Amino acid sequence: MYINIALPKGRLGKKSYELLKKIGYSCKELEEENRKLVFTSEENKVRYFWVKPSDVPVYVEKGIADIGVAGVDVLLESEADVYDMLDLGFGKCYFAIAAPKGWKSTNRTLKIATKYINYSRKHFEKIERKVELIKLNGSVELAPIVGLSDAIVDIVETGATLKENNLEIVEKLEDISARVIVNKVNYKFKNETIEKVLGDMKGEL
Amino acid sequence: MYINIALPKGRLGKKSYELLKKIGYSCKELEEENRKLVFTSEENKVRYFWVKPSDVPVYVEKGIADIGVAGVDVLLESEADVYDMLDLGFGKCYFAIAAPKGWKSTNRTLKIATKYINYSRKHFEKIERKVELIKLNGSVELAPIVGLSDAIVDIVETGATLKENNLEIVEKLEDISARVIVNKVNYKFKNETIEKVLGDMKGEL
Repeated sequence: MYINIALPKGRLGKKSYELLKKIGYSCKELEEENRKLVFTSEENKVRYFWVKPSDVPVYVEKGIADIGVAGVDVLLESEADVYDMLDLGFGKCYFAIAAPKGWKSTNRTLKIATKYINYSRKHFEKIERKVELIKLNGSVELAPIVGLSDAIVDIVETGATLKENNLEIVEKLEDISARVIVNKVNYKFKNETIEKVLGDMKGEL
Repeated sequence: MYINIALPKGRLGKKSYELLKKIGYSCKELEEENRKLVFTSEENKVRYFWVKPSDVPVYVEKGIADIGVAGVDVLLESEADVYDMLDLGFGKCYFAIAAPKGWKSTNRTLKIATKYINYSRKHFEKIERKVELIKLNGSVELAPIVGLSDAIVDIVETGATLKENNLEIVEKLEDISARVIVNKVNYKFKNETIEKVLGDMKGEL
């Protein structure tokens, strides 16, 4: 039985593929890196979908892919109904609230710019803090500088982007790493195949 | 008085800047193309924000930029509350529903994959067609091929991407071109400055 795997374009996907290759799921077609987005290895009975990181949970939730690799940031934002089965331990970073250096919070409604609108809404609801969320798709660190927001919610890896823009972390939030997610229905029907992949990945880490 | 202008990164932004340069709003700093995102010309009293295309309506709606340039696709999807003041006549393409060649619609709930979820929801509500919308962030043309959806809603320029993926247009929807949008409040308070820019752009087209 074929296993269908959704991998995120970019560094995280490449690292995940290297791991999958080690446990027997190499795919010659994928390594030739042409412009395709679906790659099949008849030999190893695996099909790869090479998609935007934020689309991986969709492919897995809808069952097009049995398993996928996604960062916790993508998972929390997508709210996809999938199993989160394995922490790969790489792709580490964290969510944080950041603001201009020396900034002090006040009681008025804060303006928060973020790419992670679902995640941020949940966070501020949980702590019962009223905020106005402003959805941006890029360069979130620009928002407090130009007066679009008081602070931002973003993912932080080294902190270099924050520093460059004279921002500092106000609060560290959830830790992020790459996870293996699994489609709930397919997990039942292809249990043996999926468990083997998960077990072998775990063994290799 | 300074005029604040949000331009979309990429071809559309460059073309818009060329037009603005012709009417007296050149900005040396911007032409040097460093890694910055905000560029000021003290001489010409203009400040440029160089942002993601989909963020332009946010910058204008919130009044950080007085005017901005955005495609109709971005405007319809963002649902930002701004004035749409001038059709620049470039950046032409159109929204379309596309499906695998030979595909026939049926009465059951259609699955539609799209980046333009707000626009699509409105369209299918308007024609009273029940659909399941699947939000993707990239490679939408892949969805019908892998069975994630029956059809897609996307923007079409030459149709080459559709052809490559063996898809064809089922229905042509709204025409798209680049528009100059204006912040509603700033339009009142900086009316003379903004009207001059709009008038000069119109004259130059």
